[in-house]
Amino acid sequence: MTVGINCDMGEAYGIYTCGDDAGIMPYISQANVACGFHASDPSVMRATVRLAKEHGVAVGAHPSYPDRQGFGRRAMKMEPDELLDCLVYQVGALKGFLDSEGMELSHVKPHGALNGVAWEDEAACRAIGLCAQTFGVPVMGMSGTGHEKVYGELGVPIIFETYVDLEYNDAGQVIITREHEPVTPEDAVAQACRAARDGQVKSVSGKLVPVKCKSICVHSDTPGAVEVAKAINTELS
Amino acid sequence: MTVGINCDMGEAYGIYTCGDDAGIMPYISQANVACGFHASDPSVMRATVRLAKEHGVAVGAHPSYPDRQGFGRRAMKMEPDELLDCLVYQVGALKGFLDSEGMELSHVKPHGALNGVAWEDEAACRAIGLCAQTFGVPVMGMSGTGHEKVYGELGVPIIFETYVDLEYNDAGQVIITREHEPVTPEDAVAQACRAARDGQVKSVSGKLVPVKCKSICVHSDTPGAVEVAKAINTELS
Amino acid sequence: MTVGINCDMGEAYGIYTCGDDAGIMPYISQANVACGFHASDPSVMRATVRLAKEHGVAVGAHPSYPDRQGFGRRAMKMEPDELLDCLVYQVGALKGFLDSEGMELSHVKPHGALNGVAWEDEAACRAIGLCAQTFGVPVMGMSGTGHEKVYGELGVPIIFETYVDLEYNDAGQVIITREHEPVTPEDAVAQACRAARDGQVKSVSGKLVPVKCKSICVHSDTPGAVEVAKAINTELS
Amino acid sequence: MTVGINCDMGEAYGIYTCGDDAGIMPYISQANVACGFHASDPSVMRATVRLAKEHGVAVGAHPSYPDRQGFGRRAMKMEPDELLDCLVYQVGALKGFLDSEGMELSHVKPHGALNGVAWEDEAACRAIGLCAQTFGVPVMGMSGTGHEKVYGELGVPIIFETYVDLEYNDAGQVIITREHEPVTPEDAVAQACRAARDGQVKSVSGKLVPVKCKSICVHSDTPGAVEVAKAINTELS
Repeated sequence: MTVGINCDMGEAYGIYTCGDDAGIMPYISQANVACGFHASDPSVMRATVRLAKEHGVAVGAHPSYPDRQGFGRRAMKMEPDELLDCLVYQVGALKGFLDSEGMELSHVKPHGALNGVAWEDEAACRAIGLCAQTFGVPVMGMSGTGHEKVYGELGVPIIFETYVDLEYNDAGQVIITREHEPVTPEDAVAQACRAARDGQVKSVSGKLVPVKCKSICVHSDTPGAVEVAKAINTELS
Repeated sequence: MTVGINCDMGEAYGIYTCGDDAGIMPYISQANVACGFHASDPSVMRATVRLAKEHGVAVGAHPSYPDRQGFGRRAMKMEPDELLDCLVYQVGALKGFLDSEGMELSHVKPHGALNGVAWEDEAACRAIGLCAQTFGVPVMGMSGTGHEKVYGELGVPIIFETYVDLEYNDAGQVIITREHEPVTPEDAVAQACRAARDGQVKSVSGKLVPVKCKSICVHSDTPGAVEVAKAINTELS
Repeated sequence: MTVGINCDMGEAYGIYTCGDDAGIMPYISQANVACGFHASDPSVMRATVRLAKEHGVAVGAHPSYPDRQGFGRRAMKMEPDELLDCLVYQVGALKGFLDSEGMELSHVKPHGALNGVAWEDEAACRAIGLCAQTFGVPVMGMSGTGHEKVYGELGVPIIFETYVDLEYNDAGQVIITREHEPVTPEDAVAQACRAARDGQVKSVSGKLVPVKCKSICVHSDTPGAVEVAKAINTELS
Repeated sequence: MTVGINCDMGEAYGIYTCGDDAGIMPYISQANVACGFHASDPSVMRATVRLAKEHGVAVGAHPSYPDRQGFGRRAMKMEPDELLDCLVYQVGALKGFLDSEGMELSHVKPHGALNGVAWEDEAACRAIGLCAQTFGVPVMGMSGTGHEKVYGELGVPIIFETYVDLEYNDAGQVIITREHEPVTPEDAVAQACRAARDGQVKSVSGKLVPVKCKSICVHSDTPGAVEVAKAINTELS
């Protein structure tokens, strides 16, 4: 498979569960593992890394703003250096479990509000890029956004990902600002194949527009997430 | 110097300061850096690692129970696996900053209540040993305690440390259970030299008793800590 | 209803859910609402208090050790004063939401490990009693335990509660130390009626032994919790 | 004294100290007590409330964004309802200690970034006002800002405060956006007297401009804070 399938994993916390990690893991190639700041805790991280290992899935770090109650979905005004330190802490913590299990860190993908802020805020994006540079791994990000420019300047490779449960505008950018209808599993699979095979997505106006796609992102809280992941996996294998 | 001088470092948090790290760092050889669970935060960890680097000081991890409000001084009933995960998380996080600065992790030394619990609770001690094993480094611990037996069984090397601001009983064990008079800087230095040169400490009853000593521990909150560290450093150089 | 039915409520956190509060609330008379230290957060507390109000359910505070990751199930060594402060903080916070909704605080019931520790540790139990005294409300506790003696000495009234999903020994004490088979809904209802009507429980050896019972406790994570609560409610109405 | 003197208090945390509360308390009339989200903890809150009681100082709540590491100085994007809940939780917790000590809550004053955000963000300001309304107390805020309009609409009384260690522009608004020289104790006292007696401040351009002043705010981290508080207290008595 030259195009990966990635999913955010390990978003449970203490007694609380979140997402069907065990159900989805067999169908993905890259797990973005939460690092304890928006979700997860040391024992969840250990279990998630082990689950990924069993299925031969590469593990990337999925760090966040320090905001457990808000699940990392609330933007915070942090100084760039402070943000970088906050990210290095999280990624280092995950790497501890990878060391334990004899695995390598695959990539860094920012979570939630941080990902959104980094789209437009160059300093935040640079902090993410510097964190990835620290660990010598690529970032996972979207084409057509500020990510591309900033990571590019730092010389940090980007694993371009395509969302299949969100809509795109005619510029090939994910539309994240408005409410939208849930995407059907069929449409998600079709979009994934288009992106993976042809480097195109169908925009909200029906046009086929180019995107850079090295990995398809499946959200574990999308309805039918396991089926979607399985279907995409079958199509792309 | 064949016998090191170690000190707990990086115990500030946010706007709060703790200890005179900059004053003590020039006189020690090993810094036990807090990892965010009893004290420190990502930015404090970064600054502490950099300070250690400037002074050529080796950096060990100083992980704790998850208890920031109690400064890790309150024992908690944790399952051994849960404790191990909690330790790996912290040490991994610190290692992230060492990676950033091109430094190696030197050792693991448990903080506060965890250190005390591990003296008698074999499962807790084993979790600490397994954490050190994960990262391929020795633990720092005391001779004459449960530490020695458990770490020994795991084959994890021990950097035996001697306290110079606490008293010893005739069995060569630190007395941690009763209130005691503060030790004068002169006594601390004398005790350090005895331990480092002769492998002996003077017990509370006045006897010279053998201890294993590879490092002298100076507490940064001891009155005159900088002067004590400096004097010991001068004596042992 | 002279004997109440109580249930721990509001144990969700951020995006995470826990228990079917909306399903159970119609069938209980007393909600023990988590206060943010083992579970819950300000918005969950607000919603839970409102839900209780809609159903005319009295709200008690369900404070815990400060241990969100461990769901308050890990005992911690805290000084009595420190524990009291920790409890007053939590109960006060809940009372803020009761003030908002024009409701009164009904009682204080310790959660998890704290409840177990207080059974035997007089100082911890006294801290709970003093907290209840601060707010002028009774505690909820079990007969046949250290609770009874300590709260009695403080003159703090006790709402004696009976568990229907745990077994009792011949001394009328809940057996909390060993693994046990889940209780069937039928057995739970029978035990509840016995306790509420006759002041008796059937012990693990089959004897009928006296208990003081002013409220039946239903755990929301017991299988069939809603049905159990409903059946007990029907029987006791 | 018809014009009060207020100071942020109780900003210690665990083993960490902050500000000379015991030194300043004798010279103020209103303590704004931190509630655990940016600083303080249950035991610090208890001690601070007791200290205020000893000196006959009124206690107001000083709630914050949930950001202990950042000392509440980092703005966070929270929904208005979520923010209100977050504030009610904190103020309620403080009120628990006031109940314990037989004291009344005096007012609510937002801390740090929240205070700044509320100046311009009507929804955030309204959440603060609604919180004060819940507890039936005034807010403490500044004239010439968004505070005045929003609190006014809610019918929540405002204790207008004047800063004496920050500069004012010709519109009578505190200048918070640029770096500035520290104010001398003499200038601080002069500004306080002007505000308290004449309802005027000297602006950065040297003009006397009107301000509404019901309380003078002294910052405990200002150099010479105790002396400043003492001098203002003497002048205004």
